[in-house]
Amino acid sequence: MSGNTFGHSFRVTTFGESHGVAVGCVIDGCPPGHPLDLAHVQAFLARRKPGQSKLTTARDEADAIEVLSGIDQETQKTLGSPICMLVRNQDARSSAYDEWHHIYRPSHADFTYDAKYGIRAWQGGGRASARETVGRVAAGAVAEQLLKARFPNLHLRAWVERVHDIDARPHIDPAQVTRDAVDAHPTRCPHPASAEAMETAILAAKKQGDSLGGYVRIYVEGLPPGLGEPVFDKLDAVLAQAFMSLPACKGVEIGSGFAGPDQTGLEHNDIFEWQPGASAPHMATLTNRSGGIQGGISNGMPIDVRLVFKPTATVLRPQPSADDAGNNVELRAKGRHDPCVLPRAVPIVEASAALVLVDAWLRQRGQVGDPWPGLAGPVRAR
Amino acid sequence: MSGNTFGHSFRVTTFGESHGVAVGCVIDGCPPGHPLDLAHVQAFLARRKPGQSKLTTARDEADAIEVLSGIDQETQKTLGSPICMLVRNQDARSSAYDEWHHIYRPSHADFTYDAKYGIRAWQGGGRASARETVGRVAAGAVAEQLLKARFPNLHLRAWVERVHDIDARPHIDPAQVTRDAVDAHPTRCPHPASAEAMETAILAAKKQGDSLGGYVRIYVEGLPPGLGEPVFDKLDAVLAQAFMSLPACKGVEIGSGFAGPDQTGLEHNDIFEWQPGASAPHMATLTNRSGGIQGGISNGMPIDVRLVFKPTATVLRPQPSADDAGNNVELRAKGRHDPCVLPRAVPIVEASAALVLVDAWLRQRGQVGDPWPGLAGPVRAR
Amino acid sequence: MSGNTFGHSFRVTTFGESHGVAVGCVIDGCPPGHPLDLAHVQAFLARRKPGQSKLTTARDEADAIEVLSGIDQETQKTLGSPICMLVRNQDARSSAYDEWHHIYRPSHADFTYDAKYGIRAWQGGGRASARETVGRVAAGAVAEQLLKARFPNLHLRAWVERVHDIDARPHIDPAQVTRDAVDAHPTRCPHPASAEAMETAILAAKKQGDSLGGYVRIYVEGLPPGLGEPVFDKLDAVLAQAFMSLPACKGVEIGSGFAGPDQTGLEHNDIFEWQPGASAPHMATLTNRSGGIQGGISNGMPIDVRLVFKPTATVLRPQPSADDAGNNVELRAKGRHDPCVLPRAVPIVEASAALVLVDAWLRQRGQVGDPWPGLAGPVRAR
Amino acid sequence: MSGNTFGHSFRVTTFGESHGVAVGCVIDGCPPGHPLDLAHVQAFLARRKPGQSKLTTARDEADAIEVLSGIDQETQKTLGSPICMLVRNQDARSSAYDEWHHIYRPSHADFTYDAKYGIRAWQGGGRASARETVGRVAAGAVAEQLLKARFPNLHLRAWVERVHDIDARPHIDPAQVTRDAVDAHPTRCPHPASAEAMETAILAAKKQGDSLGGYVRIYVEGLPPGLGEPVFDKLDAVLAQAFMSLPACKGVEIGSGFAGPDQTGLEHNDIFEWQPGASAPHMATLTNRSGGIQGGISNGMPIDVRLVFKPTATVLRPQPSADDAGNNVELRAKGRHDPCVLPRAVPIVEASAALVLVDAWLRQRGQVGDPWPGLAGPVRAR
Repeated sequence: MSGNTFGHSFRVTTFGESHGVAVGCVIDGCPPGHPLDLAHVQAFLARRKPGQSKLTTARDEADAIEVLSGIDQETQKTLGSPICMLVRNQDARSSAYDEWHHIYRPSHADFTYDAKYGIRAWQGGGRASARETVGRVAAGAVAEQLLKARFPNLHLRAWVERVHDIDARPHIDPAQVTRDAVDAHPTRCPHPASAEAMETAILAAKKQGDSLGGYVRIYVEGLPPGLGEPVFDKLDAVLAQAFMSLPACKGVEIGSGFAGPDQTGLEHNDIFEWQPGASAPHMATLTNRSGGIQGGISNGMPIDVRLVFKPTATVLRPQPSADDAGNNVELRAKGRHDPCVLPRAVPIVEASAALVLVDAWLRQRGQVGDPWPGLAGPVRAR
Repeated sequence: MSGNTFGHSFRVTTFGESHGVAVGCVIDGCPPGHPLDLAHVQAFLARRKPGQSKLTTARDEADAIEVLSGIDQETQKTLGSPICMLVRNQDARSSAYDEWHHIYRPSHADFTYDAKYGIRAWQGGGRASARETVGRVAAGAVAEQLLKARFPNLHLRAWVERVHDIDARPHIDPAQVTRDAVDAHPTRCPHPASAEAMETAILAAKKQGDSLGGYVRIYVEGLPPGLGEPVFDKLDAVLAQAFMSLPACKGVEIGSGFAGPDQTGLEHNDIFEWQPGASAPHMATLTNRSGGIQGGISNGMPIDVRLVFKPTATVLRPQPSADDAGNNVELRAKGRHDPCVLPRAVPIVEASAALVLVDAWLRQRGQVGDPWPGLAGPVRAR
Repeated sequence: MSGNTFGHSFRVTTFGESHGVAVGCVIDGCPPGHPLDLAHVQAFLARRKPGQSKLTTARDEADAIEVLSGIDQETQKTLGSPICMLVRNQDARSSAYDEWHHIYRPSHADFTYDAKYGIRAWQGGGRASARETVGRVAAGAVAEQLLKARFPNLHLRAWVERVHDIDARPHIDPAQVTRDAVDAHPTRCPHPASAEAMETAILAAKKQGDSLGGYVRIYVEGLPPGLGEPVFDKLDAVLAQAFMSLPACKGVEIGSGFAGPDQTGLEHNDIFEWQPGASAPHMATLTNRSGGIQGGISNGMPIDVRLVFKPTATVLRPQPSADDAGNNVELRAKGRHDPCVLPRAVPIVEASAALVLVDAWLRQRGQVGDPWPGLAGPVRAR
Repeated sequence: MSGNTFGHSFRVTTFGESHGVAVGCVIDGCPPGHPLDLAHVQAFLARRKPGQSKLTTARDEADAIEVLSGIDQETQKTLGSPICMLVRNQDARSSAYDEWHHIYRPSHADFTYDAKYGIRAWQGGGRASARETVGRVAAGAVAEQLLKARFPNLHLRAWVERVHDIDARPHIDPAQVTRDAVDAHPTRCPHPASAEAMETAILAAKKQGDSLGGYVRIYVEGLPPGLGEPVFDKLDAVLAQAFMSLPACKGVEIGSGFAGPDQTGLEHNDIFEWQPGASAPHMATLTNRSGGIQGGISNGMPIDVRLVFKPTATVLRPQPSADDAGNNVELRAKGRHDPCVLPRAVPIVEASAALVLVDAWLRQRGQVGDPWPGLAGPVRAR
């Protein structure tokens, strides 16, 4: 069984190779009656598309979304049936890849696709290309709309926190970051000085045919407690799957993450405290080392996750490599590439999180109902 | 839809609460005809069970496995039908938890279970307890047997790399670590000096009613290239899900992980090189920053993943907390606990990895066949 | 991927061989907070168990259910976590089957299990035995409880309509049948004269070592419109799967079924008519040739399905057969058997329907919410 | 969770409304390296498309298939990645349906879609239209290609056996039927005299604005024993689901089906007999009342299934009905329709069967391997 579907209640299947006819997705399980905001979907895609700035690949794609099904043609409302959305590939210069037809580019998926399938779409990475994420982003935009309709206080945003040796972490208070602030700079780092330094570093790497990696952080406020499905589909486990499935992602940590062991248990524990609320008290923790998730279930505090992306594997300098006939050869790189995927990764990470969260909501609604206990204050007082 | 099943071809469903009647699992999709080595399963469980040393909880459980189905009674061979295995809970002193019936322990899942379901098994953490992993470990032991029967060179082992401020990473060469060396010390750290220091630290924390976290690393040699299912079920994505679903795990990184951005792309890329082989050349990379996985598919190099576990949430010192009626209260802790989950986490991590890998193998066999292209040298030469 | 799990939101996995240690099930996705009525589960099992009357196999099984998990031990309420229930096999005289170890009984699954797996539990049919349905019935009883708690007017019952050449169809008005009336006679046919004739026929067949087949009909009132998931998981499609997966079932028809073509479209169409209701009008059709399902979705009329069961394959007379070594041999039958599975099939059919319907309800609740449009009168008037 | 995906290893998701932009499918899990015969897919679609003869709806659709992904552009070989195929809707005269915007047509799915989702694509039946089957047929054509590549002796064909009161069953020997013979007459009944009578009856019904139902039979030779997944995904159970999910299908029977109880067990049992074979003996049964499936697993004999389709619900005569505002109204029908769906159902049934069988093969290969025990003669002799 192949793995191109994500989610259980809100199921997204993506399709399409980088240099094939089109890329896209089918969403099955979308709640009916939602007035689809197609401009929002298109805007989300614009944030991930190539050619946005000199920091990203020069590939020129309009990435205009076409909706083939699942929407009432008069009202634009979702029908509850599968929504197929696609984007045609336009600037797919396969010829640029001709010389690489039989060469396995270092740290790319060329070799492993051949090893697995005995065949691969060698033009531009095929299915392993970040172009596949067009479908995820379109579906994620729909997911975000649904979430905001149900949870009006939802505030979901990601940003670039580090590029190579420029680390903006000390300068950023997650609670203060907005999506607008993130998008204000082409690096998508909301700390202006760091953003400038990152831009300079990326352009320098680009000039040298080199590439850079870094960190993205995602922060989601306004989610109720109770989302996530123990034990294998814990909310953090599914977020980890979704994020780790993104091209170039090599790690995920939540809350205190890899720094957690710096503290002892007494220091590390998040203390609970009921807070007064308009209609009922709501629960909070005084710290958020749990990253908003305990036992795999959201606790109402902000979801706080960090991802690492390796430096782009495509570099424009000769490298030793190997071909598909058993020979060790030299790869002379050329073409277009992203010297740093981080800025474009931001909307992809947001879309991925939205897919996870909308699915968690619908799963909770199916098993327990909506509203559920955690939306209505203390359990025993009722 | 609830989330107690893992895997697609080799599907494991676990059941059981910490202080209920029993914990266990059902495996569906096990290949038939495998002579089940029940002693191996029992030995695997012995490595995770409580009461192994003074480093672990004093809860006393024999954890004797009972196989109810799926095995031919004469030959002990798997039938291909569901294998139900269970362990009865014996030393489940629920009364020890009486006072906590209505209190949410800090950084535990008590609150979130109530928030989600409106009810919880309050005795000992119920389903959120690490006791749930009995089912995973039993199933993982079966998975490891199947993998070793198919891939005789498979060498899968995990170990403790860090506890609190004792970091054994510089002292350990993964390629040299064996499971025996790991099990030689109760901390399951294969570097003796670090192991001693860890033991001292854990016992000191225990004495103070405190707890410690740390890192576990898992390393798998002998896997062929070609395992893992793009795009959502990439091998690293599914490993991340499996590991992040373990109690207390707060982060997962593969290969260069969070250190990847320290390098540029030119520095970071893993260079391919065909190596002579007995029957056909096989592919290797000169470095393994990819951690054995490229584009979500194994490349034949060792799988190399690190996990972080937070310090145990259970501490035996009074802490502020909150109850299920809207009151902020003080929690006076008592009872038994693991001052550090790391040593017992090692077999759980191994079992989790085996579950991921056996499922990846069967999925590959289903779609592509067994053997597949990646088991037989260069694609184009054929 | 093996096929021992049924349902998507309310997922049931059954396990166990006929002569193994135990048979049972794990339910994942059960809504939390439901006070489990274990006596109802046990009573349901009693209706399917062997040895109820001289019409059924003499195998003597108490079939006492044990619940291992998923239930709060104080309140017996469901926790929302997996419910594992099992029944130990007691009267499993494997020795009775010794001679058949290597013989494929006609119209049994002995040969096909060997052909598929290369191994089989040859004692008593192993997994292909009707004993496997213990798990389905236990889970179905839980499902029925949940359905009745949500839809208090639900009235679900099945009955025997035909045995061999005794056809009670003309004498039975489905709307008048109650479960009590069905259980009043050991044949489970609610028309007394037919029931007597069936009993006579079954005992005569038993005496001759022969067996009989027949029809079961199931009728479900009180379901709201809106259940069923187009296009592959239409309510009738999933019912057909569930019923056809029962041992000995060879056909399923809904509503007019195989007699539908006797009429033309003008004659056959079910005419809609709004009926006055207490709070809002509700829809009815003047006839029910659709069997309560249109476009794969319930329309609020009674679900009306008929199943056929072939005559039991086990007959106590010598028959030619073949062994697993390539030889054609004679099979000398002996042992215990059901001369007619129909009476015991009734609760199994009911349980299967309950599993389908509870899953359909939770899937609807997940995607659309609960209540949904179809529970509240005309759409446009709102 | 919605239900637009079918299969586990070879997964097909269909999308599209009758009068939307396009209809199509995504196949995930297709084995790689298969040279896709697109002409075969197109020919399969041509057999189901409207406007083939005066027996079918006059809707004029070229139904030209477009493949968007999953195929190597040079070799047309499958890549192993998702195959998205679509057909644009051309002759979608929504205006023809304007008057029915708010009316529920008798025995159609208009009411139930509204009841379920609170919204519906009212033009031409939306998702409930038989136009949805374009995606199934395209995917089924791919499935058939894969099956024939693996099992060269596979011969899969369906035909019309009955229309209204014209019953061709006594005149047709399934073993003699070929697809060419079926396609030789527009009714797709391979018995010429019956075919003529059926044509006359259909045209007469059409003239009167009426419609007719009937039976389709499907017969598959050349399948090996061992396919099908007990216990819920038995081969007959999954075939029943697939067939019952087709528009207008009201019943499915396999082998002796509803006539099975006419016989006693001794009369009904299929006797096994080893037959000499080229390399190894193979198993046969002297009769085939099992319909090629025992215990839910294929036994190597022909798969033999009958389906009933009700008379088309669309009739061109006034009928009483109801609207979506609570009023009982008269429906004055008009427009185009199929007076009898049977002829066009034949390729849809064939495609559905191919989808079931290819999935069963890949599931078997995943769990047991390919070849498996049942492909190689007696088990014990080895």
